[in-house]
Amino acid sequence: MKPQVLIIMGSESDLPVVEETGRILTEFGIPFEMTVASAHRTPDRVRKLATEAEKRGAEVIIAAAGAAAHLAGAVAAHTLLPVIGIPLSSSPLQGFDSLLSTVQMPPGVPVATVAVGRAGAKNAAILAAQIIGRKDGEIVKRLAAYRKKMALDVAKKAGSLKKR
Amino acid sequence: MKPQVLIIMGSESDLPVVEETGRILTEFGIPFEMTVASAHRTPDRVRKLATEAEKRGAEVIIAAAGAAAHLAGAVAAHTLLPVIGIPLSSSPLQGFDSLLSTVQMPPGVPVATVAVGRAGAKNAAILAAQIIGRKDGEIVKRLAAYRKKMALDVAKKAGSLKKR
Amino acid sequence: MKPQVLIIMGSESDLPVVEETGRILTEFGIPFEMTVASAHRTPDRVRKLATEAEKRGAEVIIAAAGAAAHLAGAVAAHTLLPVIGIPLSSSPLQGFDSLLSTVQMPPGVPVATVAVGRAGAKNAAILAAQIIGRKDGEIVKRLAAYRKKMALDVAKKAGSLKKR
Amino acid sequence: MKPQVLIIMGSESDLPVVEETGRILTEFGIPFEMTVASAHRTPDRVRKLATEAEKRGAEVIIAAAGAAAHLAGAVAAHTLLPVIGIPLSSSPLQGFDSLLSTVQMPPGVPVATVAVGRAGAKNAAILAAQIIGRKDGEIVKRLAAYRKKMALDVAKKAGSLKKR
Amino acid sequence: MKPQVLIIMGSESDLPVVEETGRILTEFGIPFEMTVASAHRTPDRVRKLATEAEKRGAEVIIAAAGAAAHLAGAVAAHTLLPVIGIPLSSSPLQGFDSLLSTVQMPPGVPVATVAVGRAGAKNAAILAAQIIGRKDGEIVKRLAAYRKKMALDVAKKAGSLKKR
Amino acid sequence: MKPQVLIIMGSESDLPVVEETGRILTEFGIPFEMTVASAHRTPDRVRKLATEAEKRGAEVIIAAAGAAAHLAGAVAAHTLLPVIGIPLSSSPLQGFDSLLSTVQMPPGVPVATVAVGRAGAKNAAILAAQIIGRKDGEIVKRLAAYRKKMALDVAKKAGSLKKR
Amino acid sequence: MKPQVLIIMGSESDLPVVEETGRILTEFGIPFEMTVASAHRTPDRVRKLATEAEKRGAEVIIAAAGAAAHLAGAVAAHTLLPVIGIPLSSSPLQGFDSLLSTVQMPPGVPVATVAVGRAGAKNAAILAAQIIGRKDGEIVKRLAAYRKKMALDVAKKAGSLKKR
Amino acid sequence: MKPQVLIIMGSESDLPVVEETGRILTEFGIPFEMTVASAHRTPDRVRKLATEAEKRGAEVIIAAAGAAAHLAGAVAAHTLLPVIGIPLSSSPLQGFDSLLSTVQMPPGVPVATVAVGRAGAKNAAILAAQIIGRKDGEIVKRLAAYRKKMALDVAKKAGSLKKR
Repeated sequence: MKPQVLIIMGSESDLPVVEETGRILTEFGIPFEMTVASAHRTPDRVRKLATEAEKRGAEVIIAAAGAAAHLAGAVAAHTLLPVIGIPLSSSPLQGFDSLLSTVQMPPGVPVATVAVGRAGAKNAAILAAQIIGRKDGEIVKRLAAYRKKMALDVAKKAGSLKKR
Repeated sequence: MKPQVLIIMGSESDLPVVEETGRILTEFGIPFEMTVASAHRTPDRVRKLATEAEKRGAEVIIAAAGAAAHLAGAVAAHTLLPVIGIPLSSSPLQGFDSLLSTVQMPPGVPVATVAVGRAGAKNAAILAAQIIGRKDGEIVKRLAAYRKKMALDVAKKAGSLKKR
Repeated sequence: MKPQVLIIMGSESDLPVVEETGRILTEFGIPFEMTVASAHRTPDRVRKLATEAEKRGAEVIIAAAGAAAHLAGAVAAHTLLPVIGIPLSSSPLQGFDSLLSTVQMPPGVPVATVAVGRAGAKNAAILAAQIIGRKDGEIVKRLAAYRKKMALDVAKKAGSLKKR
Repeated sequence: MKPQVLIIMGSESDLPVVEETGRILTEFGIPFEMTVASAHRTPDRVRKLATEAEKRGAEVIIAAAGAAAHLAGAVAAHTLLPVIGIPLSSSPLQGFDSLLSTVQMPPGVPVATVAVGRAGAKNAAILAAQIIGRKDGEIVKRLAAYRKKMALDVAKKAGSLKKR
Repeated sequence: MKPQVLIIMGSESDLPVVEETGRILTEFGIPFEMTVASAHRTPDRVRKLATEAEKRGAEVIIAAAGAAAHLAGAVAAHTLLPVIGIPLSSSPLQGFDSLLSTVQMPPGVPVATVAVGRAGAKNAAILAAQIIGRKDGEIVKRLAAYRKKMALDVAKKAGSLKKR
Repeated sequence: MKPQVLIIMGSESDLPVVEETGRILTEFGIPFEMTVASAHRTPDRVRKLATEAEKRGAEVIIAAAGAAAHLAGAVAAHTLLPVIGIPLSSSPLQGFDSLLSTVQMPPGVPVATVAVGRAGAKNAAILAAQIIGRKDGEIVKRLAAYRKKMALDVAKKAGSLKKR
Repeated sequence: MKPQVLIIMGSESDLPVVEETGRILTEFGIPFEMTVASAHRTPDRVRKLATEAEKRGAEVIIAAAGAAAHLAGAVAAHTLLPVIGIPLSSSPLQGFDSLLSTVQMPPGVPVATVAVGRAGAKNAAILAAQIIGRKDGEIVKRLAAYRKKMALDVAKKAGSLKKR
Repeated sequence: MKPQVLIIMGSESDLPVVEETGRILTEFGIPFEMTVASAHRTPDRVRKLATEAEKRGAEVIIAAAGAAAHLAGAVAAHTLLPVIGIPLSSSPLQGFDSLLSTVQMPPGVPVATVAVGRAGAKNAAILAAQIIGRKDGEIVKRLAAYRKKMALDVAKKAGSLKKR
C-alpha cells in the first residue's frame, strides 16, 4: 500500500523519539514511510523528498528535528501538503531552540507544530490521522475509538487511586 | 454556502489580528464562520461549538487566544477535527505564555500550532487551506497560485534593490 | 468523613509528586479525595468533577498538571470554589510551560498558582488549609503549630552548624 | 464595616493596576483596605500589617509588587491568612522577574499567585471573593451572577460578529 | 567592480536595519550586492543565490532574517563560503526566536552569527571585512583605522564628561 | 577632593540611566568620577582605568553596560577593588543578555551585580556607600537617614490612600 | 576572633554549595559564622540576625537561597551592611528563579548578586574579602596572591596542552 | 608547520568539548595550537595571545567559554583577525548565559558565534576552514569532500530505515 504519510527526521539519532510517530500511525492503519534527511547537510535530498511527496501519494509530511530545527520549514517551502513539525530537545537548550525554529514561520508558509519531544511525536501521528480523516471516515472512527480508550484508561487509573 | 472553517477567538479584542485569518480564507474562497468564545469564561459554549462543528460542516477549527491560551486545547478535547492554534501576544509576557500553553499539548490531543500573532493568523488560514486541499483540488491550485505570487513579489522587491 | 479537598492530577504518573499534597492534608486532619482526570483526554470527566465538587462537600479543589497545563484552568471554569494549581515539570521545558499555562489566567477565572513541582505540591496543601481555616479555627491552630515546628527545625539545624 | 481584604502594594506607582482589584471587590460588596508597604524599604511596616491583619478582621491579604517581588512572600511569612500575590511588570524584564519571585515559594509558606499585571489584579479580587465565599453564601451568589454576566457578554460579542 | 559580499535579507521590510551593513561595507570600500530572498517563500531563489555566489565572485555571504530565521542556514547548506547570520527582532518574541534559529546550527554547517538587530547588522559588515582581510592587507589597514577611530570617539566622549 | 568611586559606562548613550548613580552618590557626599570606556572598543583604556583606580584613591568601581555586557567583568579582572556591575537594557533582548553577561562570572573574579536598568543605577550608588561605610561611619549615618526617609515616604504615600 | 562575615543559607540542604564560601574565607583568614535561617519559615530569625550583625562585628553578610530567593533581600532590608546574594539552582527552574529574585531589588535596598550556584558561592567569599580589604591591607595582599596563583594555574594547565 | 588557527578555552575543564574542534581541523589538515586562557583570571595572557596571534601566523582565532563567556569578546577586542566564539553549557543556566554573552557584541567588534556546546565546537572548525579556504583552494576541496561525505552518510542511514 502506498504510504500516506512521509516522516522525515533530521538525524538517525532522533529515531527513538520519532518511532513513536510510526507506532501510532500503525495503530491507525495508516501506511507511512520513514526516512532521514537534513535541511543543512542534505538540502537537495529534502527538496526532492518534499517536492515529490504529493505525487508519490503522501497526504501529510511530518518532520522532526532539534536545535535550529529548519527541517519542517524547509519541507514546507517545497510542498503544498500540510507539514507537521516535531521540535526535539536534543541540544543543551532543551528544546526552546527547536520549538522557536519550528513554530515561528513567516507568513505564507505554515508548519503545524506539535509539542517538544515524545509528546509531540505521538501527537504528530494523531494530527496526521485527523487530516487524513477529512477524506477517510474510517480513520475518524479509529480516532474516536482511540480517544474513547484514552478516556477509559484515565478513568481506570482514577479508580485505582482510593479515597484516603 | 456552509462554512468549512470555524474560527474562534478568546476575546473580541483579538479581532484586529484574527481578521487576517478571515481575509486570507476569503482570498482562497473558503467559507468560514468567526465567533468569540472563552475556554474559561464560557466553557460550555466552547464545548458546544467544538462538539457540533463537524456536524455543521466544518473541516477545520482555528482557535486564537493569548496568555494561558487554553482555547485551542479545549476545542481539541471535544472534536476529532484538526484544530489549529494561534498564540496571541496580548499579555505582558509577549506571547511566550500563549505559545507554550497552545503547543505543549499532552499525548493524545494535538493542536497544530502556528506562529505567535499576526504571522500565525495568516498561516492558520493557509494551513486550513492545505488541509481542505486534501479533498478539494481546486484549493490546491489556489495555494499554488498564492505561493507563486508570493515568490514573484519577493523577486520584484529584490529587483528594486539596486547593486550598489 | 466527607472530603473537604478534591485533588485532581492530569496523569497517574504525577502521583509521586502529588502525594506530598495528600500527606500534608492528612497531617492537618483534612479529609480529601484524590483522582485522575485530564483536561484534554477526559474533558467531560473534568467538568463533572468540577461542577459537582461543591455539592459533594469540597471547599477547595487542587489540580496538578504538566506541559500545557490546562487542568486547573479547566476546573476553575466550572466551579466557584477556589482552585489551586500545581505546575509540574514533566516536559522537556522543565516547568516553564506548565507554570505559564497555569498562572496566566484571563480576567474573570483565577487559579491560585503555587510553585513548580514538589515545593508546590506541599504548598497547595497548606494553602488549602489556610482557606479552610477561614471557617474552622481548629485548622488555624494546626497551621500555627506546623509553622512553629518549621521554625524550630530551622533553628535546630542552625544550631548544628558550628562557628568555624 | 470592617475591611475583609487587606490590599498592599509595593509602591504608590502600582496604583493604576491595583485599583482594578479594589474596583472588583467593591462590585462584590466586599469591604477592603488598600495601603502601600515595601518588603525592602519598610519591612517592619509589612510585618506589622501582616501580623495584625487577622486580628483586625481580614480574611485574605492581597500583595502586589514588581521586579524581585518579595512583598507577598514577606506577608505570607507573618500570617496564617491566605495571601494572594499579583506580580507586576514594572521592570525591564517585563514580569518574568516578579512572577518567579512571587510564585516559587519554598515548602511551608505558600503564596496564591495570579497572572502578571492587570489580569492578575482583577483575578486577585475574584479569588479573594471565592475564599470569603466559603463562609458567606451571599458572596457565592454574586460570583455566580458575575460569571453569568461574563458569559453573556461573550455571547453578545459573538453575536455581533457576522458570518462572512 | 565585482561584488565581494552578497547580502540577502528575508523581507524588504528588513532594509532599514540591513542597510547599516551596506553602509559600513561601503566605508571599507568593499563592493557588495544586496537582495531579497526568503528561505520559505522563495527557496529556489535562495538556493540559486547561494550556489552561484562563489562563481560570481563573492567571498562572504551575509543573511538577515527574523522569527524562525532559516535564511542563513539555508544559504549555508548550499555554499562553502563563510555565511554570516544577522538575527532580526521582527516578531513579538523580540529576537529570541531568530537568534536561536540562526545560531543553533547542527554539526557540519556553521553560520557565523552576530548580535540581534542593528548591532549585528553593523558587525556583520566588519566580520566580512575581517574575513576578506585574510587575503587583502589593504582591508586590514582600514579595519585598523576604523578601530582606532572608534577608540578615539570613546575617549573624546569620555573627555566631555566632567569630574563632578 | 579625591574621587572615591569610579563610574565607567560602556557608551555615552548610557548616561541618562547612569547619572542616577552620580545623583545619589552626590546625595551621600561621596566624590566620584564618571567616564566612558568600552571593554571591546577600548580594552586598553578599560585596563588602564581599572589598574590605576586603586592608586588614584578609588574604593569602589561601578561599571554599566548593555548587551554582552563585559565591562564590569573586564574591570574586575584588572583590580582587587570591589566592582559593581549595572546591566542595562539597551539591546532588543531587554536586559536578559546584559544581566547574564554581568552576573555569571567564573570562580575567582566576582562582579557585585545589581538590578537591570534604572533601579540598578540607583542601587549601585547605595551599595558603594555601604562598602565605603565600612571605614567611614559618617556615610553609615547618611545611609541610615536615607533609609529612614524612604520609609517615611512610603508611610506618607500609604496615608494618602484612603480606606474605601 | 570575632566573625567578620555572617553567612546565612535558606536551608540546611544548601550546605554542600555554601561551604565553598566558608572554605575560601578560611583560605583568606577571614573569621566567619555560618547559620541557617529562612526568610519565609523564620522571618523573625532573619530579622534578628540581620539587625544584630553589625553590632556583633560583621562587616559583610552573605545570603544563599534557591527558588523565590528572598533571603538576601530580606536581610538587606534590615541592615546597612553590604549584603551579598548567592542564587542557588535548587528548583526545577534551575536558578532562573533565584537569580531574578535575588538581583532585581527595587531602588533603595541593593543586594550584591553573584553567579548562580557553586561559582557564586566561591565569588561571594572573594567579594567579601575585597570589601573587607578596603580597611585591611593584609587581606588585599592575600587577594593579590590568590589571583596570582589562579593565573599561574591557568598558565600551567595551558603548558600541559601540547601544540598538536 | 605554523599554526593557522589559535584555539583558546577558558578552562582546562572545557577540553572534552573543545577537542572536537581540534579533531576536525586535523581532518582538514589545518595546523592549530590549543591553549588555556581566562578573560577574567588571566586577562593579560588573553591580550598577549590575541595581540600576537596575527604575527605568529594565525588566520583565525577560536575561543570557547561558559557562563558569562567574555573570552571571545576579549580576544576580539585585541585583534583584527576573525574570532569565532563557542558558547559552552557549563553553568546551571545551561548555555543561555554563555550564548548571550558571546553573541550580543556591541557594534564595532564582532564575534562569529556558533552553536552552544559540542555542535558549536565542530562547527567552529568548519567555519575556520571556510575562512582559510578563501585563500587556500585546497581547503575548499576538502570542505567539499567533507560535505559530500556527510550527505552520503545521511543517505546511507536513510537507506537503513525500511519502509514499514
